[in-house]
Amino acid sequence: MILKPKAAEHFTDLHGGNGSVAISRHLDPHDVKGLDLFAKVVIEKGGSIGYHEHLDDSEGYYILSGQADFIDADGEYRPVGPHDLCLITKGESHGIVNTGESKLVFLAVVF
Amino acid sequence: MILKPKAAEHFTDLHGGNGSVAISRHLDPHDVKGLDLFAKVVIEKGGSIGYHEHLDDSEGYYILSGQADFIDADGEYRPVGPHDLCLITKGESHGIVNTGESKLVFLAVVF
Repeated sequence: MILKPKAAEHFTDLHGGNGSVAISRHLDPHDVKGLDLFAKVVIEKGGSIGYHEHLDDSEGYYILSGQADFIDADGEYRPVGPHDLCLITKGESHGIVNTGESKLVFLAVVF
Repeated sequence: MILKPKAAEHFTDLHGGNGSVAISRHLDPHDVKGLDLFAKVVIEKGGSIGYHEHLDDSEGYYILSGQADFIDADGEYRPVGPHDLCLITKGESHGIVNTGESKLVFLAVVF
């Protein structure tokens, strides 16, 4: 099947982060077994997604464009850019901060 | 954790397709539970990955750049481009043909 991105949903201060985050989902949770989220995420300059825990699933952020600090499972801020896959597994936490001069765009994959 | 793409592995006539396919994996199978492959795939102009079955897992192709025909689970050839997620689930088959004038680049996610 071919799944196109749906209209963006807009969030502010997501998980205690800053600014505006737009999420364009390709599928709804439970549409596909083993894949609870596949979405393009856009964080405006200066924005972030706050540090939060994944109790029941794992998630990868694959950076498409822009520069960021990924807040890793150990709480460390690590600089990332295009082609980096920032991964946490079940029970871990993460967040991300747009540190660049433009939008940060990445794919979020929850499995 | 931050996973960067590994050096590309090169395949010819993959699953009975044509031409050269380069696969840059971010992780090895069984590194991460529930995610058996996360890789960037590049198919040269005129190339393809032949139609093949996934007996034990599901796979999505997320088109990053280029134009293609996705050979869907029903055997139909469907045109796809950037931002399309081409998904098959366990037990289904798929393939992809680079129909564009340049490289076809996509992410392959097996879960």
